[in-house]
Amino acid sequence: MDMSLIEANYGQMKAESSTEFVHHIALFAALLCACIVIGHLLEESRWMNESITALAIGLGTGCVILLTSGGTSSHILEFKQEFFFIYLLPPIIFNAGFQVKKKQFFQNFTTITMFGAIGTLISFAIISFGATRLFPKLGIGYLHMKDYLALGAIFSATDSVCTLQVLNQEETPLLYSLVFGEGVVNDATSVVLFNAITKFDISDMNTFTALKFAGNFLSLFVLSTFLGVLVGLLCSFIIRTLYFGRNSTDREVSLMILMAYLSYVLAEVFGLSGILTVFFCGIVMSHYAWHNVTINSQVTTKHAFATMSFISEIFIFMYVGMDALDVEKWKFVKDSPRNSFGASAVLFGLIMVGRACFVFPISIISNLTTKPTDNKIEFKQQITVWWAGLMRGAVSVALAYKKFTGSDEQHMEPANALLITSTIIIVLFSTVVFGLLTKPFINLLTKSSNVDQTQPSSPKSIMMPLLGQRLDVEVETGDDETSLETKTKLKVMFSNPTNTIHYYWRKFDDAFMRPVFGGRGFISYVTGTRDIALT
Amino acid sequence: MDMSLIEANYGQMKAESSTEFVHHIALFAALLCACIVIGHLLEESRWMNESITALAIGLGTGCVILLTSGGTSSHILEFKQEFFFIYLLPPIIFNAGFQVKKKQFFQNFTTITMFGAIGTLISFAIISFGATRLFPKLGIGYLHMKDYLALGAIFSATDSVCTLQVLNQEETPLLYSLVFGEGVVNDATSVVLFNAITKFDISDMNTFTALKFAGNFLSLFVLSTFLGVLVGLLCSFIIRTLYFGRNSTDREVSLMILMAYLSYVLAEVFGLSGILTVFFCGIVMSHYAWHNVTINSQVTTKHAFATMSFISEIFIFMYVGMDALDVEKWKFVKDSPRNSFGASAVLFGLIMVGRACFVFPISIISNLTTKPTDNKIEFKQQITVWWAGLMRGAVSVALAYKKFTGSDEQHMEPANALLITSTIIIVLFSTVVFGLLTKPFINLLTKSSNVDQTQPSSPKSIMMPLLGQRLDVEVETGDDETSLETKTKLKVMFSNPTNTIHYYWRKFDDAFMRPVFGGRGFISYVTGTRDIALT
Repeated sequence: MDMSLIEANYGQMKAESSTEFVHHIALFAALLCACIVIGHLLEESRWMNESITALAIGLGTGCVILLTSGGTSSHILEFKQEFFFIYLLPPIIFNAGFQVKKKQFFQNFTTITMFGAIGTLISFAIISFGATRLFPKLGIGYLHMKDYLALGAIFSATDSVCTLQVLNQEETPLLYSLVFGEGVVNDATSVVLFNAITKFDISDMNTFTALKFAGNFLSLFVLSTFLGVLVGLLCSFIIRTLYFGRNSTDREVSLMILMAYLSYVLAEVFGLSGILTVFFCGIVMSHYAWHNVTINSQVTTKHAFATMSFISEIFIFMYVGMDALDVEKWKFVKDSPRNSFGASAVLFGLIMVGRACFVFPISIISNLTTKPTDNKIEFKQQITVWWAGLMRGAVSVALAYKKFTGSDEQHMEPANALLITSTIIIVLFSTVVFGLLTKPFINLLTKSSNVDQTQPSSPKSIMMPLLGQRLDVEVETGDDETSLETKTKLKVMFSNPTNTIHYYWRKFDDAFMRPVFGGRGFISYVTGTRDIALT
Repeated sequence: MDMSLIEANYGQMKAESSTEFVHHIALFAALLCACIVIGHLLEESRWMNESITALAIGLGTGCVILLTSGGTSSHILEFKQEFFFIYLLPPIIFNAGFQVKKKQFFQNFTTITMFGAIGTLISFAIISFGATRLFPKLGIGYLHMKDYLALGAIFSATDSVCTLQVLNQEETPLLYSLVFGEGVVNDATSVVLFNAITKFDISDMNTFTALKFAGNFLSLFVLSTFLGVLVGLLCSFIIRTLYFGRNSTDREVSLMILMAYLSYVLAEVFGLSGILTVFFCGIVMSHYAWHNVTINSQVTTKHAFATMSFISEIFIFMYVGMDALDVEKWKFVKDSPRNSFGASAVLFGLIMVGRACFVFPISIISNLTTKPTDNKIEFKQQITVWWAGLMRGAVSVALAYKKFTGSDEQHMEPANALLITSTIIIVLFSTVVFGLLTKPFINLLTKSSNVDQTQPSSPKSIMMPLLGQRLDVEVETGDDETSLETKTKLKVMFSNPTNTIHYYWRKFDDAFMRPVFGGRGFISYVTGTRDIALT
């Protein structure tokens, strides 16, 4: 419903071509249906997944369109980062936050943040530095320092969609939450980094500007998170106070969707990172608002958000596949195609090295800080985490377009065209090849390491809910049995710090937040009565 | 996901203004949230409804924007019919078809079709003719014959949203299905009529062109319906054959949404009426596909479609409210505002007369054809039906813009500007005034006529399911007990023809359609086993 303004412009500027525009829409709808059906048919095969299907169909369609139209319709295939960042990314990230297993996520919060934030900075530095050293050897046109830094930021954005389609949240909870959490924080980090680079004047980099840069970076992180939490709490509060005990599923769902989207665009308006905002908005909504709505709304939101994210992902991959055949980019490099392949090879090598340089050290550090009772990240899991982040996807493409395409396609610098084509090559290669290998690769790793990997996680996954329940009971019984409470408190204290934070957070949550904003313990019985009233 | 192409154009043409564009999106999201919350708060008051709330908020926002920007941002407030017809209308109509009570709808099918098709043609003729006679007296600039005919088509499009918010499908099933069904068929009729007028060359109207026109009109109706049914059946077949017994809610929901939208755009591509197509696609999907999916998908689709339709409706009314303040239209008529008010008064008078001219005659005819055991439309219900169709809404506005705004706003003919302003006046007046009066008015009528109105309907609503069950039993038991079967067949035959059609349809449906495409009786137990398998 927020399309009207483009539509206004669109309708005004291209009113005459609205019929052919409808043709394109029909084509896209049909292709998306085909993606879903074919992807489902290929579900059994251990090699394929939806992303690759969509990529393949996109490539095929691009070929057909190019052949039929003789390259004139490459214009339509253009990937615009506005579209991606304003419409396709929010549902994906919001759904990610909405469906994430909060307990797992927050228990590994420190590790995830280290992977996502520090790790991304490390790989950014390595890719940028390596590019500055190796690109001149390839005889590529001159690039500014800013371009090299942008390259670093662009190729630090991992795309763990394929991996998450393979990993199982129940079988390997630690691995899943690590890969997933890193993916989200990493998206946010690279986007924030990219914006900071494009905004700042890096030409004269001294200590002061570096500090300013870091401060800006941190404030973006904190403010974005805060905004997301704020909007999520506001939504929960509105639903709890207004719709309490009424049968208004459509209103509840609409309000959740609209406010989630509002949080994202508000973040963009304030120059924050919408990704972080909408991610935490989703977490807060699933923690509070989701428990305030009717059963029907709960089912509907859970699956409607997943569906929106699903369609957006398919669309992005299909679009990348189509866009790979955009002639206007290739015609700049057709005289020297080996250049773009060389650049792609160099960049991909840097990506692998850069990722290895932070996955293994950070894993070791986090293993040292965790107590033996907790999850350790074994070597095989470290390899999986390293592998899972090698794929590059839509975020990289979108950032590359944002950086290297000017306002007009026609007068693109050769260097920029080359960087865009190499981006496309890397995305296609990593998604297809690594995507194809991921399923068997991870099966191999997890199967063989199933024994020594479920061993540490299974007692935790049994102990955790018990601990949670006991804490609940304490809170409900109040502070009478201080002896038991202090005992458990000490017990928790001696495990890693995250648990302590988690413990105090639960106390605070049960004592102050849930009574105001609603939550599982505080709504369930009300929901019950409400349903009886409805039936 | 089908926005990409506009986006492409948009991003290309207005890349520089993408930040302010985000501002507008944020504003719209916030306003929609406000509409939902305030509309909910005003729910108790028997005068208000969501449409009026949205209109009021739209007007208020328009005022603020005009005051703050000094009329420069009226450009943003432009209502583009592409946007309306491509994105806002499909979810509304699809949801209408998806949620309609099919039995009621098809039992009154003949009456509904007479109201929707013949009635619309009558009011179209009366409005056009009256305008040709009365407009010259107002001293309005010269209008072509085509303009008068277009006016007739534009103001034959009723908007029964307000009324349907008031009518209760359980209390007054006949009234609801009549008003609702007429609204849908009427939308389709007026749009088809409008397109036929704009396409055809009416300048030399002879018998041949008239016949051609009628033939074109009929073929549009039949082909659109056929396409909708076809896509709906295809979707049901795909889901039944592919997703049978699997846990793939997101895929199922995505596929239903995408194929429903596909049916609409395909109809537009083939030059058919997308409204009719997507409406029947919705009916077929809810009859077959909906029973083939998991319980979660059933809940999700039911509420997700309703939510989409809900948001679209709010958006349209808010937009009409904002657009009413578009300065560029008013500045053409500011020297003679009384003209547009005069034209509005004349047109609205014609609307009331034209509607009266077909509601009462058609009701009497349908009362004569129905047996006494069936529902008769009493006078009070006739008045309600007449009243329910007096409001004019988004369809009229969209058609008026399509007809009377050229490619560029700046050089609008005064006559066109006047017609657009009168359209806005009529929509605002009818929606606000009649919307405010509808609830008490209908309460008055239905309450007083509750006794003699539930009397005929209640035995039917009890008898119908029994009849349906008995027919089911027969079909299951086969043709052995021909005596009982012929008896019931004759009994059904002697009631009105619709029932006979309905009876044979049910036989055909149970014997051929459901086994292939799935349906209630043929999936329920499978669903049961599937759920057990899932849990």
